[in-house]
Amino acid sequence: MQFLSDNAASVHPAIWDALKAADAPDSPYDGDGLSNALDQRFSDLFGKPCAVLWVATGTAANCLALATMVQPHGGIVCHEEAHIEMDEGGAPGFYLHGAKLLLAKGDGAKLTPDAIRAVVDPIRDDVHQVQPHAISITQASEYGRTYRPEEVAAIVALARERRLAIHMDGARFANAVAFLEATPADAAGDVDALSFGFIKNGGLGAEAIVFFDAALADVARYRRKRAGHLQSKGRFLAAQLHAMLDGDVWLTNARHANAAAQEIAAGCEERLMHAAEANELFVRCTADERQALREKGFGFYDWGDDAARFVTAWNTPEEHASALAKALAAL
Amino acid sequence: MQFLSDNAASVHPAIWDALKAADAPDSPYDGDGLSNALDQRFSDLFGKPCAVLWVATGTAANCLALATMVQPHGGIVCHEEAHIEMDEGGAPGFYLHGAKLLLAKGDGAKLTPDAIRAVVDPIRDDVHQVQPHAISITQASEYGRTYRPEEVAAIVALARERRLAIHMDGARFANAVAFLEATPADAAGDVDALSFGFIKNGGLGAEAIVFFDAALADVARYRRKRAGHLQSKGRFLAAQLHAMLDGDVWLTNARHANAAAQEIAAGCEERLMHAAEANELFVRCTADERQALREKGFGFYDWGDDAARFVTAWNTPEEHASALAKALAAL
Amino acid sequence: MQFLSDNAASVHPAIWDALKAADAPDSPYDGDGLSNALDQRFSDLFGKPCAVLWVATGTAANCLALATMVQPHGGIVCHEEAHIEMDEGGAPGFYLHGAKLLLAKGDGAKLTPDAIRAVVDPIRDDVHQVQPHAISITQASEYGRTYRPEEVAAIVALARERRLAIHMDGARFANAVAFLEATPADAAGDVDALSFGFIKNGGLGAEAIVFFDAALADVARYRRKRAGHLQSKGRFLAAQLHAMLDGDVWLTNARHANAAAQEIAAGCEERLMHAAEANELFVRCTADERQALREKGFGFYDWGDDAARFVTAWNTPEEHASALAKALAAL
Amino acid sequence: MQFLSDNAASVHPAIWDALKAADAPDSPYDGDGLSNALDQRFSDLFGKPCAVLWVATGTAANCLALATMVQPHGGIVCHEEAHIEMDEGGAPGFYLHGAKLLLAKGDGAKLTPDAIRAVVDPIRDDVHQVQPHAISITQASEYGRTYRPEEVAAIVALARERRLAIHMDGARFANAVAFLEATPADAAGDVDALSFGFIKNGGLGAEAIVFFDAALADVARYRRKRAGHLQSKGRFLAAQLHAMLDGDVWLTNARHANAAAQEIAAGCEERLMHAAEANELFVRCTADERQALREKGFGFYDWGDDAARFVTAWNTPEEHASALAKALAAL
Repeated sequence: MQFLSDNAASVHPAIWDALKAADAPDSPYDGDGLSNALDQRFSDLFGKPCAVLWVATGTAANCLALATMVQPHGGIVCHEEAHIEMDEGGAPGFYLHGAKLLLAKGDGAKLTPDAIRAVVDPIRDDVHQVQPHAISITQASEYGRTYRPEEVAAIVALARERRLAIHMDGARFANAVAFLEATPADAAGDVDALSFGFIKNGGLGAEAIVFFDAALADVARYRRKRAGHLQSKGRFLAAQLHAMLDGDVWLTNARHANAAAQEIAAGCEERLMHAAEANELFVRCTADERQALREKGFGFYDWGDDAARFVTAWNTPEEHASALAKALAAL
Repeated sequence: MQFLSDNAASVHPAIWDALKAADAPDSPYDGDGLSNALDQRFSDLFGKPCAVLWVATGTAANCLALATMVQPHGGIVCHEEAHIEMDEGGAPGFYLHGAKLLLAKGDGAKLTPDAIRAVVDPIRDDVHQVQPHAISITQASEYGRTYRPEEVAAIVALARERRLAIHMDGARFANAVAFLEATPADAAGDVDALSFGFIKNGGLGAEAIVFFDAALADVARYRRKRAGHLQSKGRFLAAQLHAMLDGDVWLTNARHANAAAQEIAAGCEERLMHAAEANELFVRCTADERQALREKGFGFYDWGDDAARFVTAWNTPEEHASALAKALAAL
Repeated sequence: MQFLSDNAASVHPAIWDALKAADAPDSPYDGDGLSNALDQRFSDLFGKPCAVLWVATGTAANCLALATMVQPHGGIVCHEEAHIEMDEGGAPGFYLHGAKLLLAKGDGAKLTPDAIRAVVDPIRDDVHQVQPHAISITQASEYGRTYRPEEVAAIVALARERRLAIHMDGARFANAVAFLEATPADAAGDVDALSFGFIKNGGLGAEAIVFFDAALADVARYRRKRAGHLQSKGRFLAAQLHAMLDGDVWLTNARHANAAAQEIAAGCEERLMHAAEANELFVRCTADERQALREKGFGFYDWGDDAARFVTAWNTPEEHASALAKALAAL
Repeated sequence: MQFLSDNAASVHPAIWDALKAADAPDSPYDGDGLSNALDQRFSDLFGKPCAVLWVATGTAANCLALATMVQPHGGIVCHEEAHIEMDEGGAPGFYLHGAKLLLAKGDGAKLTPDAIRAVVDPIRDDVHQVQPHAISITQASEYGRTYRPEEVAAIVALARERRLAIHMDGARFANAVAFLEATPADAAGDVDALSFGFIKNGGLGAEAIVFFDAALADVARYRRKRAGHLQSKGRFLAAQLHAMLDGDVWLTNARHANAAAQEIAAGCEERLMHAAEANELFVRCTADERQALREKGFGFYDWGDDAARFVTAWNTPEEHASALAKALAAL
């Protein structure tokens, strides 16, 4: 009963069907019909013009998006536990040519306007200190917390006021949309670019960078090639994105994973470190308790010395979720 | 009848089978069993210890390999028409942090020791000029020419003499091996790293960086993550590489493509700009002749004003090749 | 009565004499006799082989030194208030191609082995997190605190144990040596490179990067040119360094500045935020008190809302120091 | 009798006077009165608004200027023998984060609109090839040739037509202005930024980056600090620039050097490889002839196997020039 990582989960059947369907000769790189149809497809989803690039990883999506917004001498305000700070092996430093991450604090790995101001306001407006050029927020956050549309709007407003660009890391954007019961447009607000993740949600190897400003996408196209991310058989990445949007597979998958997380959470409310708002649960438990869970067949990561992380996926069997809920309740 | 690009060709069935077989949960990134088995698999193929990293594109393979060999203040000797110079959107400048390509001349986009010396020898050994740190050669070359094992050996010997690292871009390494009727080890010689391409040869989205020096691979692992190329479901890339090596699919595919090229070449020997030694043909023909060919249903790229490029693939139908041979002979 | 910054102070007369003496034609860049004599000069001072490069700023000295020790995908452990983190406009990100500063805490902006371990030990040894490649400490620190030789030795020992390179930012190294009454060799310990500052200590525009590992200097020479820091009339930078070492001008100057700081400190011991160990004083005082001091003619920077920073220089008049001491005592 | 390099020449007395005059406490970095007065000073000289930054080397001036115009994924059209390509140790690759130099040909190391088109026109407008973002020309060129105002205007017009930024490397701009008997404004034309050199013309260690677009200067200020080129006692660099402009020292010096070059050229017209239009002469002569010249006491560099380079300076004694003219005539 696997709760280690949604990265380890299987690929959704619709993806396989789409891949096979795409296996006819077409123009290489992103010149094929499927790639060309993405802008319209996502524009329909968001109800506003989008320019969309596929890319194979969330790290590349985040860094390519940010590279269009931040000069090498600038900085990006992000949470001190954001993926771009903690888990991307320094990729922002590479893609942004040494631009600096300016770290803010906040419960549940979420930023607030106040937290952003606390980072930005003390920066002297002189050349000795790195000036902020952009803000990056994560929807859902590293701790599975979501930003309500009004929270996103408040941060976007601050960004506009300070003339900062704004990016959303949406590696688990689907889970956030599902939890919020909001439209994608409301969950993303007026950010300049969104890394819209599909891989953790049943995909194989394609994420979307959704630009709401076409000028940024024009830059990103060059940067994607320059980073070796323009795959020659790009139709297979485009096909995955289409398959996910067809019939709202992305949303169905996320709802399933979220429901599993809710069921487990219901069994251990008082142990939760962070409210369950997506498909990740951070549960306080001792080493002995973790040992007991593992002996019952549950796979998961330790989270420090006093907690465990459980991640549900689009295909988590309901009986696994209920078994875990019971096991946690029985601790 | 398509001769535009081997990038546009379909994916080999063995790849699809391997992908589906890999669709069980396993450790994310490169922690899975298939990824872990690659070193041994390629070591067996080359008959010496290899450390192997999968990556999604040839551009990433080339640049990650070179980034382990070249300091940012150094240079790489390569042919003036090498892929890294002409077709990678400046990726070497990005991955190598501004290191410089030092351009050499040579027939058929092949380097020789003399051509390399002509670039390296005039460089003053002082800080005002960029010093060479490595050599990169392409097997088969941009014009479909191959290096005989003794030609590779002579270049490697020069590299050692000058204390330069050496990389081989093998986007069409399979075609070179097939043409040379050599072992992979002999076709690669004693280079430090080889970008071993599979995508043009029937793959979907996985190339291998084969390091013959494990210390370089250890650096490349960090650089791959930093470049956003460590895919979270890496088992699907590893599976492709295994599928290609199983039963020598890679070699069978390359032999097929080469045979098609040979058949076509036989119909137009006197028009060939470069000897046919892989799966690319550069054929002198006028605009009118090209028009006539297109009207007969052949797809291909113009090559400047006076020539056309035809590329065969692992699945080029024999009747297409013979039709093209006849059509060219009849011009 | 100026206590704003030692950067604002005048240039020592010995520097002017040396500059005029150097104003004869000689080889450009660093080919002149004065530049060539630097290695021996500093080797004599430190009692061990040194390779020395002049450079015009402390920022360039720090970053060029670090660039020889740290790969672009690596990190540098430094204090969270270190100059390289706070005041160099992101220069380490530029010179080190996106390498990351890993921030440690510590009283008086000093690191300890424990503080370094607290940063390094939690870093997982995998490619998702930036691995430390070096440590940088500042002698004297941003708060005018010095490392005793045994403190330096303990940090160097930790660096060796963890296979990390180690750099010392010595923008005020002279003040540290003067305060410690140690030899330069003892004050620097066995670091790999020292940014030995002279500009704040009466120089005009020359700092020394002292490499105790000649191989690092060989890399730095290329990086210096590449950064546009190889001045064509380099003899004028070398001349400044010689003038500072001649007759221990550097030490005399530092002792003067330190003595002035001590005199002032004696008037306000209980107000000091940090022990006075060099030429900087951080003095708790209210806005009203600062106003009163300014009305008496003292120039200085506010340090947050509740303190002032006073910096003495090689030429601070004794009567200015005693006047400030009295004024602070009288608050 | 020294004709090796104008870099090796002495510093003009007006510079020394200005340096000493600047040796009073003032604000550090570029906050001093002299630095603040530069914009107006150069605006007066050029008769249009300028924003001016001092910097210690021509390499830094060129690269900082270009970094404001060129994205990391772009390219710069320059002559294949331009200083930025040949003699800056790869500094453009460093400062521009891997942007590429696109090399054009041209007599006397001068570009023409046709030569620029020959580089730019074949570049496919796709992401696989590096797109040009800027043009850089050198006034006077590496071979001491000058661009007439109408030649500059034609290149600027092409730049505007292609939406490329344009930079002028003016390491010897003074010599060009003096030769052309043009105003500085006419000699620079409507370029976006000019590296205005003073060091080869009797300065010590200060060049000016003259931006005719203030927005570029605002970026350059951050990049200068980030590159470690914001000297803390910047008033000494500003003072040099003022001293050079006071009473047209810069022009007087350049006229002297040019006159010496003309005198020498008159003695060897038929041997000149390039017309004498500044202070550099490239003179065909055999190894034996060079040996004979050296025996007569002339210092100079060989230029390949069949020529010698002679550089005159602001202080070349007239008798040295006439002696060399005679010696050359007598060969």
